[in-house]
Parts: sequence; structure tokens; C-alpha cells
Amino acid sequence: MGEADLVKSRRALLLIDFINPLDFPEAGALAAPALEAARASRRLAQAARTQRIPVIYANDNFGRWQSDFPTMVKRLGQGRDLSASIVRLLRPRRGDLTVLKPMHSAFFGTPLDIILDHTGARSVVLAGLATDICIQLTAADAFLRGLKVHVPEDCTAAESPQKKAIALAYMRDILKCDTRPWRSLRWHRA
Amino acid sequence: MGEADLVKSRRALLLIDFINPLDFPEAGALAAPALEAARASRRLAQAARTQRIPVIYANDNFGRWQSDFPTMVKRLGQGRDLSASIVRLLRPRRGDLTVLKPMHSAFFGTPLDIILDHTGARSVVLAGLATDICIQLTAADAFLRGLKVHVPEDCTAAESPQKKAIALAYMRDILKCDTRPWRSLRWHRA
Amino acid sequence: MGEADLVKSRRALLLIDFINPLDFPEAGALAAPALEAARASRRLAQAARTQRIPVIYANDNFGRWQSDFPTMVKRLGQGRDLSASIVRLLRPRRGDLTVLKPMHSAFFGTPLDIILDHTGARSVVLAGLATDICIQLTAADAFLRGLKVHVPEDCTAAESPQKKAIALAYMRDILKCDTRPWRSLRWHRA
Amino acid sequence: MGEADLVKSRRALLLIDFINPLDFPEAGALAAPALEAARASRRLAQAARTQRIPVIYANDNFGRWQSDFPTMVKRLGQGRDLSASIVRLLRPRRGDLTVLKPMHSAFFGTPLDIILDHTGARSVVLAGLATDICIQLTAADAFLRGLKVHVPEDCTAAESPQKKAIALAYMRDILKCDTRPWRSLRWHRA
Repeated sequence: MGEADLVKSRRALLLIDFINPLDFPEAGALAAPALEAARASRRLAQAARTQRIPVIYANDNFGRWQSDFPTMVKRLGQGRDLSASIVRLLRPRRGDLTVLKPMHSAFFGTPLDIILDHTGARSVVLAGLATDICIQLTAADAFLRGLKVHVPEDCTAAESPQKKAIALAYMRDILKCDTRPWRSLRWHRA
Repeated sequence: MGEADLVKSRRALLLIDFINPLDFPEAGALAAPALEAARASRRLAQAARTQRIPVIYANDNFGRWQSDFPTMVKRLGQGRDLSASIVRLLRPRRGDLTVLKPMHSAFFGTPLDIILDHTGARSVVLAGLATDICIQLTAADAFLRGLKVHVPEDCTAAESPQKKAIALAYMRDILKCDTRPWRSLRWHRA
Repeated sequence: MGEADLVKSRRALLLIDFINPLDFPEAGALAAPALEAARASRRLAQAARTQRIPVIYANDNFGRWQSDFPTMVKRLGQGRDLSASIVRLLRPRRGDLTVLKPMHSAFFGTPLDIILDHTGARSVVLAGLATDICIQLTAADAFLRGLKVHVPEDCTAAESPQKKAIALAYMRDILKCDTRPWRSLRWHRA
Repeated sequence: MGEADLVKSRRALLLIDFINPLDFPEAGALAAPALEAARASRRLAQAARTQRIPVIYANDNFGRWQSDFPTMVKRLGQGRDLSASIVRLLRPRRGDLTVLKPMHSAFFGTPLDIILDHTGARSVVLAGLATDICIQLTAADAFLRGLKVHVPEDCTAAESPQKKAIALAYMRDILKCDTRPWRSLRWHRA
């Protein structure tokens, strides 16, 4: 069911929690670096689409269990704050996929395993927020599944440079992630 | 994330695949009994809502990975066939939940386990289509999780009376399901 | 961890619950056909080993959580009843794998997904007890995962011919299983 | 199946990878602190057994898929190195449970979810090796499941004090773990 529509690809790009009200206490420190990461991720996503690599929005459902991502994107893109700027930069395009995640890891309680199995992905690129939380916990689950993981350091943001640096080091050392900037990705041809 | 919004309840009602184009080859034989099951399930769902028992739409995503259930409901409810009549009978109400299932079992690749864990459900009532496929495979997964399962025989439909009867017998004998009509449910007070 | 030891193979053979005290109420009717199925499955397992197809014992843990399958095999093989005869026919050989399953499906709460991912299996052959319970529920989970499933009718047994026939029909019709006798398997060269 | 044998308990103790050849390249730096952690964990495990809190060995299967933990314990306990000393300190006792984990997290590809569901555990205590790898990845999975997690800092070890400190800080800050020494556990009555 649905397998027919999925394009085969050894790689997949996950955009994690960019569609985000950024209204939690620590979000003030996160918003500015998140906007920088969103700008790079926009270019990364365009490169992926050009290569017919699936772009998958793996986004928090923010406590709503209505499976209504378009309304969430529309609502969050209407504000005047950095959160809305990020949403407008990274609006889903036709052909992009979505999984709504109830918890921090994009694999937990979502169909992501099924999508990656159907597309034949052996490696995933993770971009998004925050480096030390949802990115790192998603990277851990990808690592357990034997996937090769790339977390381009310019496409992710955390509340502080130190938290980001520690998370990137952990993902490199323990989870065997490649954390070089997105332009170093070998499939990049842009 | 989201746990705060979920009401605690020992029971949950799952409405499975009623939102359905019914355009596969065998659907002709399924549509009329499905409409009957939808009428009974509408009353069952109302009774559940009155009792503050969560009503969860566990619906096929039909090969779309856009997490956009509202558009699916709207589109399928606009036709003039039995499929659209069923959708109009069973339109989600405010407060209902949704999980989009990529495969036949409502547990496979969905957040259903998480929802039931958060609400504290120990038993599930399954209504929907088709008795011998998505209902039976969901009942099997619920049984493996130690949940008590109720499949009211008047709230489900299959392509033929014989297929329905064999599936109900299997769920009673092997999966220990209660298959009596929905009005026999002990929480029914309507 | 452990991947290195697993041989790549597009197929895997699962021997399900043959190592079994057969001491539940209905076991009397199951023992004789189970012995027949064990005799055929012994030959099937030998053919698989010859072809370097992994032979995986997917066996109930019978409420023991000690991860001690060898002791279970030794103890159950010492009796004088049909149960012990079956165990002696189907003793694991060097190189066979084991997963202890806490519930009926061999996928639920076991590392079977990981093993099949590491070996690269795209199809599974299921042999064992009972056709309508652990075999059918394992076949359902394999089907949901997109695996091709073969349930050779001569390598499985149920409490009655009727229960077996209904289960085989279900697996053929709904779960798209091939249920022809094991000698029809294309990889058979014995 | 097996639920009958499991004692109900709101808590569970996991002993992670103490049964370990410690023969990988970095193991030299890990062995001495691991022995210290094993000594504390032995007392912790005794306290748990006294309180009828389940003690669960969640141990790497080291690439063997034979479900034969007793032989692994016996073999690894026979040496003269620190690895064998640790094994002798922490030999399983009658009534302890075992899950063999194929990967780093004790939840991934194991029946641990089922055991914790059957016992009714709402919190887990993690002891073992190494703090920043199998402990942290298990803590992450426990956190995603909504379990309260305790990682007593005196019952775990890493290759370096710095790696241990960073991992403990992560588990405190992000995964909301309690990392105080085991004697601070409220259920401790010894």
C-alpha cells in the first residue's frame, strides 16, 4: 500500500522539527542559529529533490493527533517571528513526504522504517532541530538499524555552540556519523 | 509531547478504514455491508464520545505519505457512491484522534502503541473494514500486546458472509475476542 | 555486532515451536500430525543447510526468560512421548540460529527483524506448530514486512484437519503465501 | 506465555553488558573502572533481589544467535583477567531474567518491552558498561517510552572519566535521568 508511489533511492533526507512554534522556554537561544540552519537546509533540500532523493519531513506532532500537517505548516508560517521565517523557507514541495513523530526520535511510533525499507535507503541525511535532542536521538536509532548517517553541521542548530559541539562529537565518535557540511555530500552536484 | 492532551481511559475505539474510496476490484461486494456497519459504528462512536472513550481513526494512508487526513476525508466525502455516504456518516468530530496506517494492521508503523500507552487503554474495540483483513490483522497485533479486544459483529463488514463468519470465529477462538454486537458492550449506557 | 557471522541469503527457514512439551489441553490431537510435519521439516532443514540457507529456530520461551535454549532442547528431548521424538528429529545443528519468542509471532519481541535484515532475506519459509496460531500469526507479520512467505503444507500441523485447511486458505488468500509442499520450493535441489 | 512467572514490580534493574570478554581495543582503559562499577552493582543487585525487584541481564549476544546465555557466563567466568572477575562478581542468581541484545540498546530487537509491560515497571535502573554507549542508548530508548530512568553513577563505567561525565550530564539534562549513587535510590533499605 503506497509502495508504488515511492521512488527508489539509496539515500533519504530528513528535515526534523523545522516546522516548529519555537515557543518553549529555551527557544530564544535556538531561533537565530535555527534560521541559519534552515537557510542551508533549504539549499540541501533543493539539491536532494534535483537528485530525486526523497525529502521527508519528520516533524513533531506537538500533541495533536489529527494527522494534519498542511494545517500546521500553514498556521506556523503566518507569524512574524523567526519561527515563521523558517517555515516559509522550508515549506514542503509536491512530492515531499511527511511523518509526524510523537516523540523525539523520528523512528519511534512512525512509519519511517517502512518508508526507508520501501525506498531502499541505506543512508540518511539528518537536518534540523535541535542537534543534541531530536537529531541525536534520531541518529542513534538510525545507527542501531545499520544505516549510514550524515548530519551536516551547517544544517542543524542547538541552544548553544557548546551543546552543538558535544552532540556532533558524540554522533561522530559513537554513532559513526559524518558531520561535514552539506556541500561535502558526495551526491551533491549543485 | 502531546500526552497532556490525551484523556485517560481504560478503553479505546478504533474506526478502521471506513474512510475509503472502495475502488479496488472486490469493493463492489463490500460496499453494501460496509454501509450497514458504518451506520452501527456511527452510533457506537457517539456512545464512546459520550463516555469520554477516545475515538481513534486508524485509516489506510492509501499510498500518500503527506499526513493529510482532513483532505482525504473531505475529498472522499464528496462523491455520490456508497463510499462517500459512509464517509459522511463517520466524519471525525472534534477531539477524535487519527493514525494513518501504511499497512493492514493499525499497529504497524503507527503511533498507536504510544497513544494507547498514554491513555492507559487495556482494551480496544475494533470497528471497520474488512473483517478478515485489516480488522483481523489489527486484532492479532492487539492480542499479542495483551489487550482485550472487542470486535462487534454488527460494526464490521467483509466481502461475503462466509469470509466474515470465518474471521469472527478465528478472532473468537484464537485471539480471544468478544464479537457480540456493540450494544452488549458493558460501557454502553446510551 | 554479530553481523559478521551471518551468512547472506535471500531466504531463511524458520522452525517454529517444534521444541515443545506438548502438554497443553489440546496437544493430544496435535502430537501425531506434528510428528509427521517434523519428519518432513527435518528433510526441509537438511536441504536448507545444504544450500547455506539459514535455519532459524523461532521457539516459544515457555515463560522462562533465561535465554537458555540448549537446556530446553536437552530436557524436552529426554522423554518417551511424541514431544521428545519430535525434538530428537529436529535438534539444532551447528550453525543454526535461535530466537526465543515470548508470544505467538516470531517477530514480536525478538531479534528476527535484525537477523533477516543482516542476512538480506526477502522470503521466509515457515514450518512448525500450530498452523492456525503461531504459524499464521508469524506469516501475518512477515506479510506486513513485505516478505514473500512460503508455508509448506506438509511441514506444519494443527489440532484438526479443518483448522489446518482454514488457516492455509487464509494464508494463501489474504497473506499471499505459497502453501505447496516443501519439495516444490524452487531452491530445493536434494 | 510466561506472564504468570513474572513478579509485578514498579521498578526493574538492568545489568548491561557486564558479562563481557572486554577484548576490544579500548577495553584496557575500561576494565579497571568496570570492576569498580561491578562491585557496586553487585550490592545494588542484592538490594533489588531483597526487595523483589526484577534483576534483568540485558547483555550483548556478541554475534552469537544461539540463545545460550548460561554457556557465555560460564566461559567468560573462567579466565584470570578483570573480565572474568567481573563475571564472577555478577553471576546471575535463580530468578533473575535475561535478554540477549543484538545491538547497543537493550530495547532494540529484544523482549524487554514485553517484560516491562508484564511486570508493570514504570521506572528502570541501569547499571553497566559503557556509560556513553550501551547505557546511554538504552537510557534514550527508556526515555522515549516514558519510563523514569536512574543511572547510578557508581554502577557504570566508561573508558575515561571525561566520557563518563559527558554521558552522565547528557542523561541528566536531556533524558531526565537521576544519576545519583545507588544508595540514594528510595527503594534501598539495605
